[in-house]
Amino acid sequence: MPTSKSTTRKTAVVQPRPGLVRPLVRRLKAYVPGEQPRIPGLIKLNTNENPYPPAPAVLAAIRKAVDGRLRLYPNPTAQALREKLAQFHRCSPDQILVGNGCDELLALATRAFVEPAPQGAKYSATRSAQSTIQFFTPSYSLYPVLADIHGATSNPIPLPRDFSLPAVVELRRGGSWNSKAALTFVTTPNAPSGRGYATAELDQLCRAHRGVVILDETYVDFAEENALELALKQPHVLIARTFSKAYSLCFQRVGYFVGHAGLIAAVDKVRDSYNVNGLGQIAAAATLDHLHYYQRNFQRIRRTRGLVVTKLGQLGFEVCPSQTNFLMVRPPRFPAETWLAKLREQRILVRWFPHSTVRDYLRISIGSEAEMRTFLRVCELLLSSTRNLA
Amino acid sequence: MPTSKSTTRKTAVVQPRPGLVRPLVRRLKAYVPGEQPRIPGLIKLNTNENPYPPAPAVLAAIRKAVDGRLRLYPNPTAQALREKLAQFHRCSPDQILVGNGCDELLALATRAFVEPAPQGAKYSATRSAQSTIQFFTPSYSLYPVLADIHGATSNPIPLPRDFSLPAVVELRRGGSWNSKAALTFVTTPNAPSGRGYATAELDQLCRAHRGVVILDETYVDFAEENALELALKQPHVLIARTFSKAYSLCFQRVGYFVGHAGLIAAVDKVRDSYNVNGLGQIAAAATLDHLHYYQRNFQRIRRTRGLVVTKLGQLGFEVCPSQTNFLMVRPPRFPAETWLAKLREQRILVRWFPHSTVRDYLRISIGSEAEMRTFLRVCELLLSSTRNLA
Repeated sequence: MPTSKSTTRKTAVVQPRPGLVRPLVRRLKAYVPGEQPRIPGLIKLNTNENPYPPAPAVLAAIRKAVDGRLRLYPNPTAQALREKLAQFHRCSPDQILVGNGCDELLALATRAFVEPAPQGAKYSATRSAQSTIQFFTPSYSLYPVLADIHGATSNPIPLPRDFSLPAVVELRRGGSWNSKAALTFVTTPNAPSGRGYATAELDQLCRAHRGVVILDETYVDFAEENALELALKQPHVLIARTFSKAYSLCFQRVGYFVGHAGLIAAVDKVRDSYNVNGLGQIAAAATLDHLHYYQRNFQRIRRTRGLVVTKLGQLGFEVCPSQTNFLMVRPPRFPAETWLAKLREQRILVRWFPHSTVRDYLRISIGSEAEMRTFLRVCELLLSSTRNLA
Repeated sequence: MPTSKSTTRKTAVVQPRPGLVRPLVRRLKAYVPGEQPRIPGLIKLNTNENPYPPAPAVLAAIRKAVDGRLRLYPNPTAQALREKLAQFHRCSPDQILVGNGCDELLALATRAFVEPAPQGAKYSATRSAQSTIQFFTPSYSLYPVLADIHGATSNPIPLPRDFSLPAVVELRRGGSWNSKAALTFVTTPNAPSGRGYATAELDQLCRAHRGVVILDETYVDFAEENALELALKQPHVLIARTFSKAYSLCFQRVGYFVGHAGLIAAVDKVRDSYNVNGLGQIAAAATLDHLHYYQRNFQRIRRTRGLVVTKLGQLGFEVCPSQTNFLMVRPPRFPAETWLAKLREQRILVRWFPHSTVRDYLRISIGSEAEMRTFLRVCELLLSSTRNLA
C-alpha cells in the first residue's frame, strides 16, 4: 500500500494550470476563523461559545432521532422549524429562511442582492452601488471576505472611537457612506466591541437605506432590546439570528433570516436544496420548546459579565460596555498581542485581531463563573509578576 | 397576540422594490428536489436513499457525541475526517475537501472555477469557455441550475439514446462539445440512467479537457469500478463522493472532493468556515471504521436490483442497465407520468422528470427486498387491471 506521502509526491509533479482557477479566487485571502483546539483543561474564551450545554431535553430529542431515519434526506425547507420560528416571531413561515449557520445565509444574501463588480476593473474605481457591500468597521470580519469571494466592492465605514452607531446625518456628512449600497451589514449588538444599538437608532439607519440591510443579531439574546420588528415592517430589512451562541448549538449549524417574504424567496432561490442537516433542524425545534432553560443562562452570563467588567476595571483594563456574551478590552501594561500569548501559556485562549483599529484590544468571551474566576486570577498574576520584575 | 396571518397581511402592504434583487436571481427557477413526504407506510423510491440504516456502531458513535460539546464549533476543516479519508484513498489530507453534502461542493466549484458571463449579454451569445459549465444530458438536473445561479453559460451535451459515454472523437465531431469549458460535470455512474462508465473511457475524456472536470461519483459504490485514480493522477480532475446514499447518511449532509491539492485549496477559499456540522463529521468518520457492514448492503442492493430488472423485463418494462441503486425504466401500456400517479395512489413514490429526453421514463430507487416485492406486485396489478378493462 503506497503511503500518503509517496502519493502526494507523485501528484505534486504535475501542477494544475493556474488558468483553471478564477483570478478572483487566486487573489483571495481566506477568512481566518478563531482556533478550535482540543487541548485538555483549556479555558476557551476565543469564539464566543456559550459556556453552558444545550437543555437536557434538547440533547434527549437529538439522541432520540439518531436511528435508521438518518438514511433519509432531511426536510429541504426545514418546514417544521420554520413553522415554529414563525409562531415564535409572530410572522408567517414564508418570512423565515433557515441556513447552515448564519455564515451561509450572509453568503447567500451577497449572491442574491449584489452584482459582482465588472471583471478586471479595480475594486476602488468601480464603486457602483449595485456591486457594493457596506459594513461598519470594526464589525464581523467575515463581511469583507464575502465581498471578495463574490467579486463585490467592500465599503467599510469606520465606527467612532467608542463604537457607537453613527446617526444618519453624520453618515451623510462623512461622505463615504452609500445609501444605495446593494447590501449593508450591521452587527447589532456590535462585534467585536460588544456595544448594543437602540432599535430607534437602527430604525432611522434602515429607513435611510435604499438597498437591502441585514441586521446581524447573532448576540442579541444577551442584549437589552432587539430589532426584529424592523424586519417585519420594512421590506428591505432582514434580521439574521443563530442557534449557535445563545442556544449552545454551534456544533449543529443552524441560523435563520427573518424578513419580507419577497426577499426571503430571493435568497431561497440561491440556496442548496438540503442545506440544513436533519439533526440540526430537530435540535433547533426542540430548543424553542425549552426557552426558559436558555433565558436562565442568559441571566447567568450577563451576571458573570457584570462581575468581570468590574474586576477588569479594577485591574486597569479599559472595558467597552457590552450587551453580548463577550467583552472588548484594552489591557494595561503590555500590548494586547503579548497578553494573548501570556494567557495562552496559562491555557486561556482569547481572541486578538490584527486589524489596525482593534489591535490594542482583546476580545474575551464570557465563560462560566468558574472559568472567569480563573481568568481574572491569571490576569492578576500576570500583572503582579511584571510589577515584581519592574 | 397578532396571528401570523395578520402579520403577513401587514407586511404584504409594502412590497420590496424589485431592484433589491439581482435581475439574474429574479429570473431563476429554483431546482426542484424530489419530494420528502412523511406519509406512514409510504414506499419511498424517489430520491435514491439507501433502504438500510447506518451501522449500529455509527448510530452509537453519534449518540455518544450528543452532549455539552454541541455548544462548541465543529472542526472548521473536518480535520479528523479528512485524515481518515486520505488514509482510505491513499492520498494526503490536503487532497480532500469536505462539504455540507455534495451539492454544496458542486456549487463551490462553480464559484472557484467559472467566471460569471458578462451581465446583460444573452446566455447563448457569450459562450466563452471561461464562463461555460458543461455536462451531459440527461444527468444530474442540478448542474444547469448551478450555472444559472452563478450567471454562467450551460453547455448541455446530449447523450446517445442508450446513455453511453460518447468517445472523444464523437464529441469533437458533434461540434457542440467545448474542450476548454471552465468546468465539466460527468455523473458516473450516470444518473438518472444508472449506466456505468469504464474508467478507461473516463480517462480519455478527462485527458481531452483543458478545464476542470468533476467526476460525480455519488452512486459509485453500487458500480463495478470507480475512477478515483484519475483525480490522483490528473491535476484538473476532481472526484465527488458522498456519505448520503451508499452510507445511509442523507440526513447528516456530508460529501467530499478528492483531487490535486492546488484545486482543493482553490475551492476551500470560497467555502464557509464551519460548513460541515459536527455530528455529520463524527458519523462519517465512524462509517469509515465499519465498511464491511456497508459492503454487505451494497451486495444486497445489487442482488435486489438484479431481481427487479428481471421481473420488470418480464412485465414489459424497458430497463436501462444499471450500476447504481436505482433503475431507469420505460414503462409499458400508459405514459410514465400516469404510472407516477397510479403508483402514488398505491403509496409508492418514484421519480419522473418532465425533461423531454426522459419524460417517457421513471426512475425507481432500489428499496429493501420487501419494498421491491410490493412494488413489483403493484406493477403487476396495475397492468392486469388495465388488461381486464381493455
